Amino acid sequence: MIDFETSPDRYRHWKLSIDGAIATLTMDVNEDATLFEGYKLKLNSYDLGVDIELADAVERLRFEYPQVRVVIITSLKPRIFCAGANIYMLGTSSHAHKVNFCKFTNETRCGIEDASRNSGQRYIAALNGTASGGGYELALACEEIYLVDDGNAAVSLPEVPLLGVLPGTGGLTRLVDKRKIRRDRADVFSTLAEGLKAKRAKEWGLIDGFFPTSKFDEAIAARAREIVAANHSIEPRQGIKLNPLQIETTADSRQYRYVSLRLHRDQRYADLTVSAPETKLSGYPPTVQEMGDTYWPLRAYRELDNALLHLRANEPEIGLVCLRTKGDLNNVLAVDEMLEEHDDHWLMREITLYMARVLRRLDLTAKSFFAIIEPDSCFAGNLLELALAADRSYMLNDPTNPVEIATSVLNACAFPMSNGLARLEARFLAEPEKFDAVLEQERFDTTTADAIGLITVAPDDLDWDDEIRLAIEERTALSPDALTGMEANLRFAGAETHDTKIFGRLTAWQNWIFQRPNAVGENGALTNYGKPTQAKFDFKRT
Amino acid sequence: MIDFETSPDRYRHWKLSIDGAIATLTMDVNEDATLFEGYKLKLNSYDLGVDIELADAVERLRFEYPQVRVVIITSLKPRIFCAGANIYMLGTSSHAHKVNFCKFTNETRCGIEDASRNSGQRYIAALNGTASGGGYELALACEEIYLVDDGNAAVSLPEVPLLGVLPGTGGLTRLVDKRKIRRDRADVFSTLAEGLKAKRAKEWGLIDGFFPTSKFDEAIAARAREIVAANHSIEPRQGIKLNPLQIETTADSRQYRYVSLRLHRDQRYADLTVSAPETKLSGYPPTVQEMGDTYWPLRAYRELDNALLHLRANEPEIGLVCLRTKGDLNNVLAVDEMLEEHDDHWLMREITLYMARVLRRLDLTAKSFFAIIEPDSCFAGNLLELALAADRSYMLNDPTNPVEIATSVLNACAFPMSNGLARLEARFLAEPEKFDAVLEQERFDTTTADAIGLITVAPDDLDWDDEIRLAIEERTALSPDALTGMEANLRFAGAETHDTKIFGRLTAWQNWIFQRPNAVGENGALTNYGKPTQAKFDFKRT
Repeated sequence: MIDFETSPDRYRHWKLSIDGAIATLTMDVNEDATLFEGYKLKLNSYDLGVDIELADAVERLRFEYPQVRVVIITSLKPRIFCAGANIYMLGTSSHAHKVNFCKFTNETRCGIEDASRNSGQRYIAALNGTASGGGYELALACEEIYLVDDGNAAVSLPEVPLLGVLPGTGGLTRLVDKRKIRRDRADVFSTLAEGLKAKRAKEWGLIDGFFPTSKFDEAIAARAREIVAANHSIEPRQGIKLNPLQIETTADSRQYRYVSLRLHRDQRYADLTVSAPETKLSGYPPTVQEMGDTYWPLRAYRELDNALLHLRANEPEIGLVCLRTKGDLNNVLAVDEMLEEHDDHWLMREITLYMARVLRRLDLTAKSFFAIIEPDSCFAGNLLELALAADRSYMLNDPTNPVEIATSVLNACAFPMSNGLARLEARFLAEPEKFDAVLEQERFDTTTADAIGLITVAPDDLDWDDEIRLAIEERTALSPDALTGMEANLRFAGAETHDTKIFGRLTAWQNWIFQRPNAVGENGALTNYGKPTQAKFDFKRT
Repeated sequence: MIDFETSPDRYRHWKLSIDGAIATLTMDVNEDATLFEGYKLKLNSYDLGVDIELADAVERLRFEYPQVRVVIITSLKPRIFCAGANIYMLGTSSHAHKVNFCKFTNETRCGIEDASRNSGQRYIAALNGTASGGGYELALACEEIYLVDDGNAAVSLPEVPLLGVLPGTGGLTRLVDKRKIRRDRADVFSTLAEGLKAKRAKEWGLIDGFFPTSKFDEAIAARAREIVAANHSIEPRQGIKLNPLQIETTADSRQYRYVSLRLHRDQRYADLTVSAPETKLSGYPPTVQEMGDTYWPLRAYRELDNALLHLRANEPEIGLVCLRTKGDLNNVLAVDEMLEEHDDHWLMREITLYMARVLRRLDLTAKSFFAIIEPDSCFAGNLLELALAADRSYMLNDPTNPVEIATSVLNACAFPMSNGLARLEARFLAEPEKFDAVLEQERFDTTTADAIGLITVAPDDLDWDDEIRLAIEERTALSPDALTGMEANLRFAGAETHDTKIFGRLTAWQNWIFQRPNAVGENGALTNYGKPTQAKFDFKRT
């Protein structure tokens, strides 16, 4: 079982150190501390275990060290920054693990950019040695990239020439879309196994600067101080601690404080229930600060995130997740009101941004989602996003047992999807006037929700049980691959962004290549890397 | 060998009839006239041969019948419009053929939309019977869709529930992006094998209207007349005939009038050379009208299009195409000047739009392209687009033997890529000021072209032969699949559109699924369709 929880005292591959407004994340991969057997993590190469620690550090920096303005990512290994994803791990992994691994690392890198953009924690890649493949892709996720000029260090994307796969952790997209490298140069660079050294790399825009070995550390420190100085006006902030989640597990359930996951493995579906806070919580920032990670939205969404990652990595045969909520809808709306009212406070903003990231993780999860809206549920405000993120929603239509859903101001734009649109906006692409209307009306019983288009189906109480049961049976009988492809297309109508290009275009091509005999077959390049045998290609172009 | 040339007198599956400003394209597939053996084209299902005729008709309508304002697509079969791509053909095709087939049909459907948008030929789908799968996808490419309401006819996308693959010919994208169907309804519709009949289909926005059988033909005719009436002010236009191309073929070459294709099969690359007009051609519209399809830009680009399609379908092992040009650059620029000066004339506009489509076909071709710029070449204006579309360009740097390239005003926006950007715009995403600068300066020798970033490499005369030879050798040694994925990502920086979503996101997922055992394995849904055996899925979600 893959465990997505960790903390700095348990890190085996990274060191996190804080010096005032400057944090340093140092990569020092323990080559023996692998997630699976059969490979060693040499040269700061990584597997999912290494990236789980990085993801943890990136999240903690935002909550625990909010005064940090610059995060320097560097390496403790001599002459090597990072060699990218471990090739032997990739070569021996199942297709499903490769896909899940890439998705998680992509989310981590988008999370780094989210921190730079939204939390003013600017990431700098201090490449004190060669950054190749995923190592350079990690650098590309930073806002600034500096390379040591030691006559040897280079940046490179050797996936195509050496492995017959893509730089699929955002590499190709970030080259031409984020750094806007000319496409012919990107083509040359991406087919050049040895990559480019400092001078040419700077000329082509692959890095932002370079320094000789003797001056490297000081130059990076100076640049970090410069960024901090430009942000001197920021108010002092007191971080909050993210404690381990308390999870009670049985063979077919995971029970968190506010989230409950029940697996119906024989029927290939799960119930994922989020409970509302028990009371109307205060949102007065000093009080929230004191509540820390027990404050409902932070706690509930951390639990939701963990449950989603668990489902992805450890429950591959679960094809459908029924999203449910439980509790008083007014208590959920009260949370949204507080988050909105105090959105000038760093912690309240940070919590909202975190909720948005978790909801995006849901959008990007390769499982079907049905929202089940019943009496005693509380699909309101932030929890309404669950219903909007679902592939379908079912809402009971029983006048003797009424159900309500509700919008809050946060549904307008606080939780953007990867494509930059609010889920309500994406839902009403054809009727943009309804976007305003549903925000204004706020509360909806089944009839009005159905009429305005907030839900998919509204069965009455006589049909309810059969309809839900049938819907679950029918969904879980379909081809899981066709569903993954279908949902990846239907969920992201409208605009495309840098992020959706990575998760859509780039990832889909990489997944295709990850199945091609030229990469993973007996004679494939990935299979034969580092062996005395050579790859033999079928040269038909497809 | 697949032949992409045809004409109405040779159609076996379509009938094209013209009545003033109204054209009718009637589908009446001859079930025995298949491209390969082993299947029958029942119920107006199609293979690539059927779509080659449709693509031909769509092009001819623009050039031969420019007075046409409405094109009605309908069927001659009782109770069935079109059953989509033939499933037995798909089930028995190679992966490469499936991918090529889908790409071509996608281009044809984008071509229909291009005609509606840019040539004022509005396509109406008159569904006189059920349109399922690719049949409904063809309807989705039309601007208006009408369904007969006979208690039986439906529109449907049964690919996911019946075949375990996607509606990959634009279906999923056009549902949510073009018609802006709510994503939960799109989800229900795309998993419902039997689809929806008229009333519900209209309610959900899947069609624009429906009529009972007795009134169907007249209602369609009335709607067509209405559109024509709204366009009554259009000047009378005299079409020009598109005659068969004259092609001399040998075992390793295809010689057209202005295009020459030479295959180096043992080295897996081809030389594709376009020659300039021999003289400065008149672009006076009545003269062009008289020249008809012998007018250089039309002739040369029709030949280029045919050569590209031939390479895709019939030369799978050719991985690299060296794009070359030959002749007087001034004669090419003179053509552009005429096309620009007379862009208010329908034929000149139509020719420019056609050139843009052919260049987009090049962008979407899964081969590497290198532009080879030597003395006596003429990469100017429209032919400069070949160098800009190439993955790399090599320009000789020899002061004793100078080479020039040149921009024309048509490089500004006459030939948009699928993402809506001009190739120059995409090239200079990072330095938009250079976009204006290169249009202004117009002519560039090797040094200035290199300095401003119009070319990739500028080897001198001593290195030239070796550098080109090595570049070809290195490129053709790489994994063809990794190159296809890499180029599909690097070629389309910047904006995404409806078209690039189809060719990027949707197609890449479909290609992935086309390799999955759940679709094409022994127990896969596509393999087992129509057989007594049932699909058995590996239910792991990826």
